[in-house]
Amino acid sequence: MSLTNTVCRLAARPVGLPKPSDWEIVDEAAPSPADGQFLVKVSYISVDPAMRTWMNAGRSYVPPVEIGEVMRAGGIGRVIETRHPDFAVGDEVYGVFGVQRYALSDGRDVTAVDTTLAAAPVHLGALGISGLTAYFGLLDVGRPQPGQTVVVSGAAGSVGSIAGQIARIKGCKAIGIAGGHDKCSWLVEELGFDAAIDYKAGDLRTQLKTHAPNGIDIFFDNVGGRTLEAGLARLARGARIVICGAVSQYNAAEELRGPANYMQLLVARASMTGFVIFDYADRYGEAVVHLAGWLRSGELQSREQVVHGDVGDFPDTLLALFGGQNTGKLVLALDGGAR
Amino acid sequence: MSLTNTVCRLAARPVGLPKPSDWEIVDEAAPSPADGQFLVKVSYISVDPAMRTWMNAGRSYVPPVEIGEVMRAGGIGRVIETRHPDFAVGDEVYGVFGVQRYALSDGRDVTAVDTTLAAAPVHLGALGISGLTAYFGLLDVGRPQPGQTVVVSGAAGSVGSIAGQIARIKGCKAIGIAGGHDKCSWLVEELGFDAAIDYKAGDLRTQLKTHAPNGIDIFFDNVGGRTLEAGLARLARGARIVICGAVSQYNAAEELRGPANYMQLLVARASMTGFVIFDYADRYGEAVVHLAGWLRSGELQSREQVVHGDVGDFPDTLLALFGGQNTGKLVLALDGGAR
Repeated sequence: MSLTNTVCRLAARPVGLPKPSDWEIVDEAAPSPADGQFLVKVSYISVDPAMRTWMNAGRSYVPPVEIGEVMRAGGIGRVIETRHPDFAVGDEVYGVFGVQRYALSDGRDVTAVDTTLAAAPVHLGALGISGLTAYFGLLDVGRPQPGQTVVVSGAAGSVGSIAGQIARIKGCKAIGIAGGHDKCSWLVEELGFDAAIDYKAGDLRTQLKTHAPNGIDIFFDNVGGRTLEAGLARLARGARIVICGAVSQYNAAEELRGPANYMQLLVARASMTGFVIFDYADRYGEAVVHLAGWLRSGELQSREQVVHGDVGDFPDTLLALFGGQNTGKLVLALDGGAR
Repeated sequence: MSLTNTVCRLAARPVGLPKPSDWEIVDEAAPSPADGQFLVKVSYISVDPAMRTWMNAGRSYVPPVEIGEVMRAGGIGRVIETRHPDFAVGDEVYGVFGVQRYALSDGRDVTAVDTTLAAAPVHLGALGISGLTAYFGLLDVGRPQPGQTVVVSGAAGSVGSIAGQIARIKGCKAIGIAGGHDKCSWLVEELGFDAAIDYKAGDLRTQLKTHAPNGIDIFFDNVGGRTLEAGLARLARGARIVICGAVSQYNAAEELRGPANYMQLLVARASMTGFVIFDYADRYGEAVVHLAGWLRSGELQSREQVVHGDVGDFPDTLLALFGGQNTGKLVLALDGGAR
């Protein structure tokens, strides 16, 4: 079998938003599996804000993608050639396959995907890392109690949209922060958020005061910057800030903006806690049972925005994410543009 | 009895460091106690960094001192006139008596001071709010385990010097951050800190790396700003940052500096938690028993720096605090300049 792989490699460390010259898209011969390996044809690539952080040098929760390396990405594909005892040709699998058409794997951290349960993109969204992040971030780090007020920033994104819905399921008042009327309508009308705040329409702090008159018990933050500061300014006594992401800061070319009013943590006797989803790997099963149950019962809605294209469309798809153009989980389908 | 009271009132809200014109020092007739009240002659005034925050308008953990009000301050004094059944003339008491010579009280939040146990200034330091703050901040918020690395900023201050010593008592490695060689020597040689870092001598981050090679488990922060950022940059997995104060920021005339690298909370799966000592009021007794025991056994050293003067010396004494001139607990003794 002689296959041509299309690969998206990191060519340079971006300053600010990634430029075309920060990427190198190349065709090369697909590798052949050695003993204990298999080859996956990637069908769907997960496009996530955190990817931008992987492109930077320096200490983070995962090593940086090195210059010249295939860009890291979670994805779903099908095994097309195998010399691994546990993976058969035709298996649909999830793994960190990278932004490429064909990926070699030794099976580590690769899991089976049951597409009879839900379509493949859902396994990148509500039933994938996004859903798991929302689940453990909200429930384990946030510790919601019925009747509490939960504010989610980046609420129309893949993690935020699920976090807010889980808050509702757990009997909390769920308030989303998102950009634009359409996203806000979707949050309230489709997903059942109690309220949604359009940060582009009017002062965020004033709107938070209106919708969270008794203060915020849990602030689930995907955004950082001024949004985090607005949340800090309205904390209820004993509040928990769950630090999930900081999408407003990922493309900052200069020094990041720290929350200038972090001393509100003292005023409110509150905490701000970071987490990394991989730490919960041994409890993914428990979470998926709940998430799948809520999807089945209709309590949880999953939305995926699937961009049809090729490996070469990855750079623009990533930029669309930072332009706030997606609603729900952004996925790049490697189907050559819906052919 | 016709007594002249000297009173220090807040005349204006300071921008940056308080100026002489931000204060009004006036002589006026001392009040007479009504039924259920008593009059205290104040002997010692507690001088604390947090005082600067009380001078600002806006939401905090206590209401701001209003313009024209007597400056708020904890103090120790003696009851000299009483119409309160629980307080007798001659009683030595602690209370928030304000920066003035004579204070009227209804007994609320006033506690007896046992000067046979320790000298009065110690009751403002290790056995007072400073000691209690160190005790509950380190033990309840920080939750130290034996063998963990505890870094205390503002370590030569009233709270920091005690927090570091309690860390040692609990079997932790205690590292202090302070300004200048003398303070650092005192921390290590007198108080038994494992190490002290002079932030004025060399790069703080490099020094933290040297002294906390395995990372910081608890960062007890009294300073904020760049110091907090240096701590964030060296957190161990699962670290706790205890937000006790932010003395580097209290006199900022412009917007405060938030910790630009707060996303290290995510990288380290760490938390940053604020607390207010008043919440622990029903457990003060428990803490004082331990603190007094450690003082008695010599495990805990208390140092008070007593400035002898009058009410009119309060503004300069407060400035000395922000100039980093004190070691240990700063106290203004109203004895007219050691007469």
